Amino acid sequence: MLRVPYSDLYETLKKAMERLGLAEERAALCARLFAETTRDGVYTHGLNRFPHFAAAVQNGSVDVQAEATRTVGVGSLERWDGRRGVGNLNAFAAMHRAMELARQHGIGGVALANTNHWMRGGTYGWLAAEAGLFAMCWSNTLANMPAWGATTPTVGNNPLVIAVPRPGRHTAANHDFAAGPIVLDMAMSQFSYGTLAAYSKHGEPLPVDGGFDTDGNLTRDAAAIQASQRALPVGYWKGSGLSLVLDMLAAMLSGGLATHQLSRDPFRESGQSQIFLAIDPSTVASTLELSQIAEGILASFREATPAAPNKPVRYPGEETLLLREENMRLGIPVDLEIWEEIDG
Amino acid sequence: MLRVPYSDLYETLKKAMERLGLAEERAALCARLFAETTRDGVYTHGLNRFPHFAAAVQNGSVDVQAEATRTVGVGSLERWDGRRGVGNLNAFAAMHRAMELARQHGIGGVALANTNHWMRGGTYGWLAAEAGLFAMCWSNTLANMPAWGATTPTVGNNPLVIAVPRPGRHTAANHDFAAGPIVLDMAMSQFSYGTLAAYSKHGEPLPVDGGFDTDGNLTRDAAAIQASQRALPVGYWKGSGLSLVLDMLAAMLSGGLATHQLSRDPFRESGQSQIFLAIDPSTVASTLELSQIAEGILASFREATPAAPNKPVRYPGEETLLLREENMRLGIPVDLEIWEEIDG
Repeated sequence: MLRVPYSDLYETLKKAMERLGLAEERAALCARLFAETTRDGVYTHGLNRFPHFAAAVQNGSVDVQAEATRTVGVGSLERWDGRRGVGNLNAFAAMHRAMELARQHGIGGVALANTNHWMRGGTYGWLAAEAGLFAMCWSNTLANMPAWGATTPTVGNNPLVIAVPRPGRHTAANHDFAAGPIVLDMAMSQFSYGTLAAYSKHGEPLPVDGGFDTDGNLTRDAAAIQASQRALPVGYWKGSGLSLVLDMLAAMLSGGLATHQLSRDPFRESGQSQIFLAIDPSTVASTLELSQIAEGILASFREATPAAPNKPVRYPGEETLLLREENMRLGIPVDLEIWEEIDG
Repeated sequence: MLRVPYSDLYETLKKAMERLGLAEERAALCARLFAETTRDGVYTHGLNRFPHFAAAVQNGSVDVQAEATRTVGVGSLERWDGRRGVGNLNAFAAMHRAMELARQHGIGGVALANTNHWMRGGTYGWLAAEAGLFAMCWSNTLANMPAWGATTPTVGNNPLVIAVPRPGRHTAANHDFAAGPIVLDMAMSQFSYGTLAAYSKHGEPLPVDGGFDTDGNLTRDAAAIQASQRALPVGYWKGSGLSLVLDMLAAMLSGGLATHQLSRDPFRESGQSQIFLAIDPSTVASTLELSQIAEGILASFREATPAAPNKPVRYPGEETLLLREENMRLGIPVDLEIWEEIDG
């Protein structure tokens, strides 16, 4: 594993984005979002995702020139058209707008149609939480999971992000490693196909059941799930239902495509629908009150008896700031092959 | 099992509510919400829950005179104080207000503090969806589940409701049994303690793992989970994180109590915090567009190959209208013992 300085990662990605045709300012933001994702340890959706992204640009699924625009909206809810542009730039613009609406109205929502893969969903949660806002956002995806009771792909793994700020404790400018925001970033499948592939490659059993084998039995055998293509929704019937309603909200509110209309070819999956909600708590509460409630919850959470000694329970996103600091200090880990390919 | 006409169930509950001290109009609404819950087949949270509700009134946990009031709010977000009043009346008022705000601003939100158990959460989803609005609402609860990685109760099973309307197909006045709204009503535990008790009583294994035994192994043995008190969050670490962030949103936005502050005695659990969000899609889309997208998704969903022959996949809430019709026609099933106790 190679470690490179953050600035090298960013500059290399920025040049690569420019080679793909993004104008300078957009290339800079897009590269920053990819680089920050790798810096924060979400390796699958940062640099390692770049070759997939480049392929989607080259096959025409992503239009690097297109910018998201508002199509209709009054008050706190707006509909935007992503025009098949760059997924993370569109999502960044949509959450940014939802935050503006929240500051104005208390709650703000943007329903974004015709966009592309947003890469790390948590990015947009961090964006809001670092500004002191709550956020909820989700995307639909291609059908990659049978609904509960079905054997054929019916629902997407539709990632859902919920972010909670740490008022008075954490901002983008003032990093307290022990006081980062709480950012839940969960897909509706218990394991991604990427994770299944990794377990399968090493011949290791999954920690819990991850799907069905071809005989219809629940299994921890990743290879058997790859063979059946029957990955499990989180919570069985519950995650299946949650995935369906998230798809309906996204497609109906945005006027865009639903899961069943998205290409099953991951390199041509394009036109996703996404929802971005932001809530500005300062309209109803003081920073002190918010902070006291949040810190009280987290203090109680940390008091839980661990199942394994010396392994305290963690809240979602808890270790991100520590990992970020470590990666900034030691260099960002990059996959040598991908790095050499892009750093041309 | 006894079946009674809906009107008998309603009138009996109304009289019982009046005996508990509710003023007539409030007794009528409270009785209606209990009766409708039983009518819709959610037996655990309708009539069968009445004795628990009555006990909470009698021990002072629920103040039948108190009405929820707005404490602060601008634009689309308001904070309400439930004043430890009747849970379903408070929740009904809060969702009703969120719907008004949504009609005005596109999105509306009410954060409700100091309330009580809302009984069937789906009630408030149906309320919004039958009026053509989307809804999301959730409640925190007492700590009844270890967080992932812990052995002691840390998080609540915090029910989450997401409702999707069927524009142009379904309203409260025009029931098409095949076109009801989609109403997801899921707790964050894979199985409730009520369900575990039922399986344990009949000595039947759970359909999937429901928790840990006292040795820390995942198990389908309901009695073993009752013994360990280690019920599973949906999706293991995922539902644990989701439960935490829902609690933080509810307590921080409402200024009310968090899970760790709620009494562990179910009869004295009082002061929950809840969030009610409503979205009015008519501000951005036509009924025709909404209907086409929704029906397209559901048509595709129904085309999935069932895992068991002749057992088509179902969306959340799909069978409610059929069950409702059957119960209205044949009479509402009631537990004889509870019925005789209340019908005094």
